[in-house]
Amino acid sequence: LAAPSPLNPVEFLRHKRDGAEHRPSDIAAFIDAFVAGNVADYQASAWLMAAFLNGLSRKETLALTQAMLHSGSVLTLPSVKRARVDKHSTGGVGDKISLCLAPLVAACGVAVPMISGRGLGHTGGTLDKLEAIPGFRVDLNAKRFERIVRDVGTCLIGQTEKLAPADRRLYALRDVTATVECIPLIVASILSKKLAEGIDGLVLDVKCGGGAFMKDLKSARALAQALVSVGKGAGKRVTALITDMSAPIGRSIGNALETREAIEILQNAGPPDTRELTLELGAEMLVVGKRCKSRKEALPLLERALADGSALEVFRRLVKAQGGDARVVDDPSRLPQSKTKLVVAAAKAGHVTAIDAYALGVLAIELGAGRTRADQKIDPAAGFELAATVGARVAKGEPLVTIHAASAAKAKQVEARVTAAFSVGKRAPRRSAFVLARVR
Amino acid sequence: LAAPSPLNPVEFLRHKRDGAEHRPSDIAAFIDAFVAGNVADYQASAWLMAAFLNGLSRKETLALTQAMLHSGSVLTLPSVKRARVDKHSTGGVGDKISLCLAPLVAACGVAVPMISGRGLGHTGGTLDKLEAIPGFRVDLNAKRFERIVRDVGTCLIGQTEKLAPADRRLYALRDVTATVECIPLIVASILSKKLAEGIDGLVLDVKCGGGAFMKDLKSARALAQALVSVGKGAGKRVTALITDMSAPIGRSIGNALETREAIEILQNAGPPDTRELTLELGAEMLVVGKRCKSRKEALPLLERALADGSALEVFRRLVKAQGGDARVVDDPSRLPQSKTKLVVAAAKAGHVTAIDAYALGVLAIELGAGRTRADQKIDPAAGFELAATVGARVAKGEPLVTIHAASAAKAKQVEARVTAAFSVGKRAPRRSAFVLARVR
Repeated sequence: LAAPSPLNPVEFLRHKRDGAEHRPSDIAAFIDAFVAGNVADYQASAWLMAAFLNGLSRKETLALTQAMLHSGSVLTLPSVKRARVDKHSTGGVGDKISLCLAPLVAACGVAVPMISGRGLGHTGGTLDKLEAIPGFRVDLNAKRFERIVRDVGTCLIGQTEKLAPADRRLYALRDVTATVECIPLIVASILSKKLAEGIDGLVLDVKCGGGAFMKDLKSARALAQALVSVGKGAGKRVTALITDMSAPIGRSIGNALETREAIEILQNAGPPDTRELTLELGAEMLVVGKRCKSRKEALPLLERALADGSALEVFRRLVKAQGGDARVVDDPSRLPQSKTKLVVAAAKAGHVTAIDAYALGVLAIELGAGRTRADQKIDPAAGFELAATVGARVAKGEPLVTIHAASAAKAKQVEARVTAAFSVGKRAPRRSAFVLARVR
Repeated sequence: LAAPSPLNPVEFLRHKRDGAEHRPSDIAAFIDAFVAGNVADYQASAWLMAAFLNGLSRKETLALTQAMLHSGSVLTLPSVKRARVDKHSTGGVGDKISLCLAPLVAACGVAVPMISGRGLGHTGGTLDKLEAIPGFRVDLNAKRFERIVRDVGTCLIGQTEKLAPADRRLYALRDVTATVECIPLIVASILSKKLAEGIDGLVLDVKCGGGAFMKDLKSARALAQALVSVGKGAGKRVTALITDMSAPIGRSIGNALETREAIEILQNAGPPDTRELTLELGAEMLVVGKRCKSRKEALPLLERALADGSALEVFRRLVKAQGGDARVVDDPSRLPQSKTKLVVAAAKAGHVTAIDAYALGVLAIELGAGRTRADQKIDPAAGFELAATVGARVAKGEPLVTIHAASAAKAKQVEARVTAAFSVGKRAPRRSAFVLARVR
């Protein structure tokens, strides 16, 4: 049991309710008392609502991050002698980047200890994608995690009970008290978990657009700036890219389909936007990890690691080290396959002007690619394979997308809404930049 | 178990969080679900904080009042044929008015069914004062309550488990989540309990000043207006007086001492300010109860009931009906007496310019006249008897106040702070009005 805290929780709540700034020591005492059971859930949730409405300053957010970080054990990875840099995405649709990025960066000499999550809302989760590989285990303990990071250069696991338990409990409360969409609380939640991994630096991929939690550039920039500022305040090297999330990333949505696309990237192939995002984030990570001085210096290094097979080789070793069937690396047809493949064709000729990433994210979950309750089993094979992406010219009757489903009935159930997610117009859309902004 | 509600509690919270106005049916569903256990305490408390910070409209406050009222049983008192009017005070120091007011108004022909409370914070509680009378029972059931109101004209009991249970549970949460001082929540809490008594009308005594919860006229007026407006919206005749609570009411603070003072008022004696407040509130009640057309018509009626002993006779019958020793009515020395009586004398000559009601309220509780935890036993004899009130001229060494305590040590413990509560200056203070405003 924690030592009794001098904190008066009601006074603490009153302080934030009245718009005042907490002292860092009071935030630490509040989080300690919450984890020790001396602050009740109903007090924590009232505070979350007050913080949501009255805000938290950078100083408060940093104190909250550190209090949550130190609510559990913090990895130090003493045996990993290379720079350690992780990437975090705020969540998108078709975002399989971690799967190809981690081995690629590791192949270039920077270690990537990565603790990832499950799908959330309409977005997919890295752990679910990795588990599409038969035998792949994400529930490794800290010791094994460290050994694999040391030996392979990267390891991807799920959050353990011991890391940032305050975040887990606060997140569960936020989810049921309408206090999720709050930048300071999001920042503290993300960073407290990431800083517990024992990293030197962090690159953030802040998604922006219809398929992301942040719908516009202004709010994405505010989140990116807060993440970078608080991350630096915690003594880490942190940068952020704000990237476009109006259309799905690459050509696949769904766990096995996305894992396959990530392998294609590592095979020096795959969709150009997935490759571009992987390279841009990789370049940031090599700079943050002090492996390279600039993006310009980093990009050729990354391209070479894709071309010479060294990144793919790291992935092969990673899969093996985490208990997976490494044969999928050379033969992705070993990944789970759906029973039904229903091709959706263009109803008219024209240019694909937009693809509603949010809608496809939600529909993929309806097909079983994600959960609406924590206890649901997912269907690793379910999802969408895009035949046409934004800007493509399609003739009438040409395929737009293939629905991968467990049954024809399930595929039919979503077909009309999948079709509606594609906008086909007369004019080709303006090509916009993929990386919208960099925040350092 | 209640029927499953179509309400989504998270959406409900999000609505108030974003500053929107709830539909009355959604508020009803939320309170129903809370009482049925389908809304968790942590959700209710997050909503309370959102309501505190973003406010509730009059319409929302009325809906909340009615939802809380109907969360339990509502008395109708069918056998009571007279108009039924209650009074509620927002709480002060030395506020014994209910004890003399209820029998006085009943003696004038308006029934007073009164469900009262215990001391709260620095203020005393009517139930605690009544229990200073040996044998007096305040835990009567609804049937007995109705019979006594019918036969005696008034009855004063404590809240039962069955009346407005939603208020009891919400109040307990507000107390520990810093959401007490919020006018719409205060209004719904007060009115839901009072409307459950089966009254036709209600007179509110909104206290204002250092010894009250509302420290200034602006906030007292806002509370009074909200109470009157929502009470009327619920179909009742409601008026409010805003009365001065900068100095203690009358000459006594503490349970037996205040009961004694209330008996003095009924004996057509007692301090003039206690008498004035009793008469003013009584006049309001006779008007609200349609017994009189105006304050002017009501005052002589009330004065006569004090002068001819009929109000005292109602009190005697009330005490008897509620199991108390009615001999105290004619011999108040039968009330509990303190072991120690310590006289505090003026250190210099001059005029008493102010008496800090809040400080004396807190010190009375320290002497045992009230509780700081719900399970504490109180000392009915403890308190203060004021020898000098505001405006009085005192010579050096003349008594200011007598401390009634269970021991000399306890009296000594508070003596210096009791002395400090009295300001003695050269000039007589300006006499200000006692009734600060009327809200109808």
